[in-house]
Amino acid sequence: MILKEGDFVLLVDGEKRYLKRLTRDFSLSVKDKQVKFQDVLGQEVGKVIKGFCLLLPTLEDIILLGFKRKTQIVYPKDSFYIAFKLNLSKEKRLLEFGVGSGASTAVFSQLAGEVWAYEIREDFYKLAKSNWEKFNLCQNVKLQNMDFLTAQLEEGFFDAAFIDVKDPLPYMDKVWKVLKPGAPMGSILPTTNQVSDLLRAIEGSFCDIEVLEISHRYYKINPERLRPQDTMVAHTGYILFARKRI
Amino acid sequence: MILKEGDFVLLVDGEKRYLKRLTRDFSLSVKDKQVKFQDVLGQEVGKVIKGFCLLLPTLEDIILLGFKRKTQIVYPKDSFYIAFKLNLSKEKRLLEFGVGSGASTAVFSQLAGEVWAYEIREDFYKLAKSNWEKFNLCQNVKLQNMDFLTAQLEEGFFDAAFIDVKDPLPYMDKVWKVLKPGAPMGSILPTTNQVSDLLRAIEGSFCDIEVLEISHRYYKINPERLRPQDTMVAHTGYILFARKRI
Amino acid sequence: MILKEGDFVLLVDGEKRYLKRLTRDFSLSVKDKQVKFQDVLGQEVGKVIKGFCLLLPTLEDIILLGFKRKTQIVYPKDSFYIAFKLNLSKEKRLLEFGVGSGASTAVFSQLAGEVWAYEIREDFYKLAKSNWEKFNLCQNVKLQNMDFLTAQLEEGFFDAAFIDVKDPLPYMDKVWKVLKPGAPMGSILPTTNQVSDLLRAIEGSFCDIEVLEISHRYYKINPERLRPQDTMVAHTGYILFARKRI
Amino acid sequence: MILKEGDFVLLVDGEKRYLKRLTRDFSLSVKDKQVKFQDVLGQEVGKVIKGFCLLLPTLEDIILLGFKRKTQIVYPKDSFYIAFKLNLSKEKRLLEFGVGSGASTAVFSQLAGEVWAYEIREDFYKLAKSNWEKFNLCQNVKLQNMDFLTAQLEEGFFDAAFIDVKDPLPYMDKVWKVLKPGAPMGSILPTTNQVSDLLRAIEGSFCDIEVLEISHRYYKINPERLRPQDTMVAHTGYILFARKRI
Repeated sequence: MILKEGDFVLLVDGEKRYLKRLTRDFSLSVKDKQVKFQDVLGQEVGKVIKGFCLLLPTLEDIILLGFKRKTQIVYPKDSFYIAFKLNLSKEKRLLEFGVGSGASTAVFSQLAGEVWAYEIREDFYKLAKSNWEKFNLCQNVKLQNMDFLTAQLEEGFFDAAFIDVKDPLPYMDKVWKVLKPGAPMGSILPTTNQVSDLLRAIEGSFCDIEVLEISHRYYKINPERLRPQDTMVAHTGYILFARKRI
Repeated sequence: MILKEGDFVLLVDGEKRYLKRLTRDFSLSVKDKQVKFQDVLGQEVGKVIKGFCLLLPTLEDIILLGFKRKTQIVYPKDSFYIAFKLNLSKEKRLLEFGVGSGASTAVFSQLAGEVWAYEIREDFYKLAKSNWEKFNLCQNVKLQNMDFLTAQLEEGFFDAAFIDVKDPLPYMDKVWKVLKPGAPMGSILPTTNQVSDLLRAIEGSFCDIEVLEISHRYYKINPERLRPQDTMVAHTGYILFARKRI
Repeated sequence: MILKEGDFVLLVDGEKRYLKRLTRDFSLSVKDKQVKFQDVLGQEVGKVIKGFCLLLPTLEDIILLGFKRKTQIVYPKDSFYIAFKLNLSKEKRLLEFGVGSGASTAVFSQLAGEVWAYEIREDFYKLAKSNWEKFNLCQNVKLQNMDFLTAQLEEGFFDAAFIDVKDPLPYMDKVWKVLKPGAPMGSILPTTNQVSDLLRAIEGSFCDIEVLEISHRYYKINPERLRPQDTMVAHTGYILFARKRI
Repeated sequence: MILKEGDFVLLVDGEKRYLKRLTRDFSLSVKDKQVKFQDVLGQEVGKVIKGFCLLLPTLEDIILLGFKRKTQIVYPKDSFYIAFKLNLSKEKRLLEFGVGSGASTAVFSQLAGEVWAYEIREDFYKLAKSNWEKFNLCQNVKLQNMDFLTAQLEEGFFDAAFIDVKDPLPYMDKVWKVLKPGAPMGSILPTTNQVSDLLRAIEGSFCDIEVLEISHRYYKINPERLRPQDTMVAHTGYILFARKRI
């Protein structure tokens, strides 16, 4: 593929990675290396130009480097697992609230048939919309700027649910109602207190409950001196899964 | 959904989970609990019958509890992440070899448009086929019982590649050729020696190289006594990602 | 050193380890290997006899393989760190309760000048005594079969404290009193709820508070196939440290 | 204890910790807080003065905050475990090389009867000496500015050995000779390649071999929002233990 004006390009220099749009004023300077619009335009993806390997961004690159965020996002390490764990597929309709910057929705919408998404805050609603439009994502997502509690929805309407709000407790009755019997729901919770609270709230109404943490440990890529990076992300959130019991 | 004869059912009793086919001779006894065909037939999913919550198996359940295996499989904790990291989507064609029990293929085929899969051993080839057919998976997978090295393939044919063989080194030249420029490849490797070897082999021909480990830590789900499980999986494999450089 | 009757011997066969007393009826059979009293008696430590490397047990070996236990012990991975973190040395007097099987006391008493230990249950008191006597440990420990709450102690008597009871809260006022100003205390707590409770209880009366978990990940020792063991201990307890504030 | 001129003081402000010497020009400013010599002089340890809790530094504080370093040190999380694992006690003589900044020696010397330490580089030798003298540590350490290989030592002279040099291989024959039969040795190695190399080198001459990594995960100490810190140390080194086989 040949890079043309307007494309998003991932420029990789060793372990450093930059996501940029190829506009006429594009320019990237890192230490003694510099690359400009004319250097990159018309080049084939995969080429190394002035020390930067030119690539197309993956979904992970877009979320981590391209999305604007005003809140803690659901990181790909978590959302990639959650998407499959919710058993999403083209025949499935997912409920999601709150949407925040839209990072997790961008992942779930790849696997699900459709996503009904609710975001109560207008600034987040606009941010998510703008992130998705910029990268041409989430065409199968119906995003509404409202509280999920006020949405008019049939019972048993959704095949799965994902909840990412500070306090999920007031929502759990309604989540239970709009899910199909046996359908999975997931939530990400930063603190152990929230996990205890949600476990208490779903006791009896959900079964097959799991709580886990996901850790990624990255390595330095020197084959003669293989070893983990010095530091790592220690925590993003606890992930809770359960299924609607009737 | 109403459970009928022939359905696969996931029966959940607290933290114990059983995947069974609902045949006339179905019966599950766990300690003092017993459930039989007539108890489950015609019940709605999500119900608790004789102490077991009746659910439909997710893809993860199928892989972990339903697939037969003759080898170490690629675990969902790894393959769920790899699927997205390879940037699979409906427009993408994935290369995969070796297939083993077919666990990772079943994941990748959910996201990819098509998967071209190669398995050199006939027993594994048959096992994967049988696992997929049993659970109605992998219709977009073209599986061949042959060495990938002997396959006739155009240059730049694949959008992504996943390699799970003991020694990937003899294959890397061909992997490079059949990938599109900039396309991602991934591999899972049990030992640090293999990681060093593969890092050496791809130096110069691939860029954007990452090596990582994924850990899942599960918790006991008592809200008043929240704490991790006593033991956890410490290692399945090191995951290596890279992209074709031209 | 020459092994004689009555000695404790650690017999190592690859990754399998056995701690035995060299009595006349000593005999160890593992698969096709067997070793008896006469084989080991008079042998030098470090020798390999009939496939077993003969060693003297370390303190860790004694705790893990030699101590009888009726409760969860404080594991060496935790107690070795705690001992130094409490800043024990020959001039320091440590308070410890409850003692349980005496595993942590056996570690702390190596570094501390003296340990005043309290165990409310008579069966644990006897067990700890018996474990220590068997291996000739803890001569500088004054163990009492009583509730620490009922002990008559001066204010500011101890240089450090270690607490390992189900509910430390009723004890914290007295712990504060008997510690010297600025002195460290530590506790090990299985659940997050207990950690939250203890954090609340010491707010204002202790400073320099830390909470951590310690993980050990072991590797298979094949140099050509270096990789972690398949499973690991995921949790023993959360460790809390703080210092008396006045 | 009353703080007097010349004392080392640990000043703790929430999770921030500062190790300072109480000299006439002492002054610490953190954001809007400031504390000076006259504020601290004569105060009792444990008091909170102008927002800082005044404490005496522990050995861990001294190593992490007080020692000057020109190299990667052996961190307390590792050395505290190693000290006990080498089964050090007052009757034991430890061999250690290279010494680096002297951080691990300061730990081992607390448990061991005596430590014979070798450091080939003069700048490190002087640095270790100066770190120890400043904090009045390591009186039972005999440090020599020489290569351990050139030291004149009897066979079977040491009860334990700790090796922290880039390439331990040339030293292993001599380490074996100067250890007592069955005596433990430990080493810390940053890379997997070094672990493989050392495992190969000791095969047949050492037994009871273990390789492990130690991780500490710290928590935020808010009892209502208990959760791990965002980041953690992912790697310091692989620790290898073995015992002399004869």
